[in-house]
Amino acid sequence: MNERMASPITIERTQSPKPRPQASSLGFGKYYTDHMFIMEYEASKGWHTPRIVPYQPISLDPSSKVFHYGQTVFEGLKAYRTDDGRVLLFRPQKNAERLNRSNERLSMPTLDEEIVLEGIKQLVKVDQDWIPNEPGTSLYIRPFVIATENALGVAPSQEYLFMIILSPVGMYYSNGMNPISIFVESKYVRAVEGGVGTAKTAGNYAASLKAQEEAAEQGCAQVLWLDGVHRKYIEEVGSMNVFFRIGDTVVTPALNGSFLAGITRDSVIRLLKHWNVPFEERAITIDEIVQAHRDGTLKEVFGTGTAAVISPVGELCWQGERMRIGDGTTGELSARIYDAVTGIQTGKVEDPFGWTVAVD
Amino acid sequence: MNERMASPITIERTQSPKPRPQASSLGFGKYYTDHMFIMEYEASKGWHTPRIVPYQPISLDPSSKVFHYGQTVFEGLKAYRTDDGRVLLFRPQKNAERLNRSNERLSMPTLDEEIVLEGIKQLVKVDQDWIPNEPGTSLYIRPFVIATENALGVAPSQEYLFMIILSPVGMYYSNGMNPISIFVESKYVRAVEGGVGTAKTAGNYAASLKAQEEAAEQGCAQVLWLDGVHRKYIEEVGSMNVFFRIGDTVVTPALNGSFLAGITRDSVIRLLKHWNVPFEERAITIDEIVQAHRDGTLKEVFGTGTAAVISPVGELCWQGERMRIGDGTTGELSARIYDAVTGIQTGKVEDPFGWTVAVD
Repeated sequence: MNERMASPITIERTQSPKPRPQASSLGFGKYYTDHMFIMEYEASKGWHTPRIVPYQPISLDPSSKVFHYGQTVFEGLKAYRTDDGRVLLFRPQKNAERLNRSNERLSMPTLDEEIVLEGIKQLVKVDQDWIPNEPGTSLYIRPFVIATENALGVAPSQEYLFMIILSPVGMYYSNGMNPISIFVESKYVRAVEGGVGTAKTAGNYAASLKAQEEAAEQGCAQVLWLDGVHRKYIEEVGSMNVFFRIGDTVVTPALNGSFLAGITRDSVIRLLKHWNVPFEERAITIDEIVQAHRDGTLKEVFGTGTAAVISPVGELCWQGERMRIGDGTTGELSARIYDAVTGIQTGKVEDPFGWTVAVD
Repeated sequence: MNERMASPITIERTQSPKPRPQASSLGFGKYYTDHMFIMEYEASKGWHTPRIVPYQPISLDPSSKVFHYGQTVFEGLKAYRTDDGRVLLFRPQKNAERLNRSNERLSMPTLDEEIVLEGIKQLVKVDQDWIPNEPGTSLYIRPFVIATENALGVAPSQEYLFMIILSPVGMYYSNGMNPISIFVESKYVRAVEGGVGTAKTAGNYAASLKAQEEAAEQGCAQVLWLDGVHRKYIEEVGSMNVFFRIGDTVVTPALNGSFLAGITRDSVIRLLKHWNVPFEERAITIDEIVQAHRDGTLKEVFGTGTAAVISPVGELCWQGERMRIGDGTTGELSARIYDAVTGIQTGKVEDPFGWTVAVD
């Protein structure tokens, strides 16, 4: 094949393939496939030697910058096995573009997006037998970049590692698509305008853990983040974007420079517009949501993200009050969006947007 | 010795010691000694098996949480060789305490502070021949904790590694204690109240790099950070705390929950009080500093931190204006504080505060 021959990516296959886990035990991000993609960067040489090798530990000096100063960015996307045996990726170009936006914010070298996409495709192809096809399952793809220079001065690293690993996954939430309780956070802040909140970088996730732990103590699965300046504008939920259906209109916070521009968020917006559902992208205060709940117009709340796709919210906990959303079950529109997005992703439903990309 | 026998720390000495670098080539954080301290944590066992081993790379699975979600904290302190051959640490208990405060903020397991201190002391003792004693040199000590669980779900890691590495260092700034130009940052924000700004964690440093790069393009060595809410209160400079001498009074920003409570900062405050220098710890706006400069009362500006100890600021760049501080050279009080702190650290000056701790 010409394509394979033209690719600079070399492939070394494993001599000892691992046993495949049962679909029922997959969970999220617990098992990894037989191979991984790896490529190094040095300031003097740029990115070089892209290759697929057997999945294996990496060896790093204890002074590697990633351990100390957190220069790291990542992406997350999924590969799906269709009923007729094809393998589909969902909008992978968007991930490659965002990875580079994150790289720029973190003073890290950008990647050739074609190599990123080719690396994803070839790695998925090599490990395609790992793609589960039970309902709700997929192959999660995690591209990431870490700073590897052995130096303790606070300055951008001169060396990096770009890797892609694959993990067969089930439903993100172990109890399936049941609506979750969300704690509206007033003590902790995830990110602020002028910070790195729009980048998919490790520090944003580290910063969220304490709030998530304290929310769990209140019986809530995730946190609804408010902005760090006024402490009243809604930003995102857990590590997902968030949508509200108020009356017949769907609203989501406008991108404001402090939270991630989700690819699932963008897909949902385009679906809503395609369906002519009244939709607004604007600033939303928690007070507006509380008022809508009191007025009985808050019909649905749901998070959007690659891992869970759509995550319905059944309850908001705010200042000691527990506000049930609708009748506490998955809303009609949430279910419709979930079916449409996952239908397109798995090739079960026509893709009018050209979102899916076949591997090979 | 009973103490050694009671210690749970085992020591494996290197069979191939490395050559020592020239004092003149040390720089900051470029060379590492012959040994390192390491200890693991698993949720079921707690911290276990503290040991000193030859300095060596560590092997981690690509899915290790530190690469993806940034759960990592660190500390920095120094060991000094006195003229009479003793080895002194400077307030190491403060580092152990802060390491645990950082651990708690990042939902990471706390460490037995006695083991941390004992690990530092024993490691420094094993590698004490690496301690340089030329003026301005020391042995930098970097304790750090990283999350090592192989799992991609966003949740606190169940496994960690605590390590201590040592690096012989020269002056932090390669051009010595010359005053530096500082860019007052109005576009980027380092951290905000409710975030992780008070923790010594990787993400705070990653978030600072872009601003530092853009400051360098303006000919400035560091950034002066303003608060993320009002964008007018002074927080810190680069990765140091900051002090201003306005007239005869020294002022420093009061701890507000968004920047690091520096140990050098605390030491400088205690010195100033000991000397009966008028001192205020309070909110300071950039406007107040600009006004003091216009009035001719802004006498000195300096940063404080473990790496540089005292870093005089010769110029502030703010909204296109370059404000020279004093006559642009190191201020009288800055020099006096530097001499006092480094004098105590190196055992050249009496230590009325009981800050130094002898190794062995």
